[in-house]
Amino acid sequence: MKKIEHLGIAVKDLDAANKTYKAVLGAEHYKTETVESEGVSTSFFKIGESKIELLAATTEDSPIAKFISKRGEGIHHIAFLVDDIQAEIERLKAEGFKLLNEVPKPGADNKLVAFMHPKDANGVLVELCQEK
Amino acid sequence: MKKIEHLGIAVKDLDAANKTYKAVLGAEHYKTETVESEGVSTSFFKIGESKIELLAATTEDSPIAKFISKRGEGIHHIAFLVDDIQAEIERLKAEGFKLLNEVPKPGADNKLVAFMHPKDANGVLVELCQEK
Repeated sequence: MKKIEHLGIAVKDLDAANKTYKAVLGAEHYKTETVESEGVSTSFFKIGESKIELLAATTEDSPIAKFISKRGEGIHHIAFLVDDIQAEIERLKAEGFKLLNEVPKPGADNKLVAFMHPKDANGVLVELCQEK
Repeated sequence: MKKIEHLGIAVKDLDAANKTYKAVLGAEHYKTETVESEGVSTSFFKIGESKIELLAATTEDSPIAKFISKRGEGIHHIAFLVDDIQAEIERLKAEGFKLLNEVPKPGADNKLVAFMHPKDANGVLVELCQEK
């Protein structure tokens, strides 16, 4: 794991949250992206070597809609950058962790991603990501 | 805001969580620290320019004990490094945010810290921190 690539925050209203996080971070988001397969619209802010990714649901059965319905808005996941995501998946499996994706899938921001089961990491949803 | 200084994760058992995060991150924690005034024991892992801070309650009325009782283990807060915490508090107040600490207080890891109200930041507990 090389660095915190980004922190994902589930929000109800992306435009309103963009204004809030502009005020918190003192800088505008630099891009937005919709990932249809995940039912999310996202926006990205730079902070040091990491990013803040705001996530809003685009469909009622989006994982983000379900998360907000269950827990309210808040931090949804933390993503770590890795060089070789398949090797990292195998390493974590050998350590006894359950991966939600044993084969990486395309994610936002031109990444290959895989998620770990939050029950294995003290309730934290951990994403591995690798540049495509 | 210069970078993600650390991400705080509330855990029930610090020793067990240290083993888990050693396996996830591929490296040992490099220090532990107890902050009596906050009722927490903490351990720190390096990840790029940031840290992961595991937090376990040392008293039943610790904010961490209350958090876990209400929401379960998981990400508790995100901390951003700032150069001048008092100036940042004033800037955020002028932006209309509510600060839980209008005067910085001593935190773990030789920092001065102040928290924003999570209702103002989409359910995210944001900590500002400055090196002492």
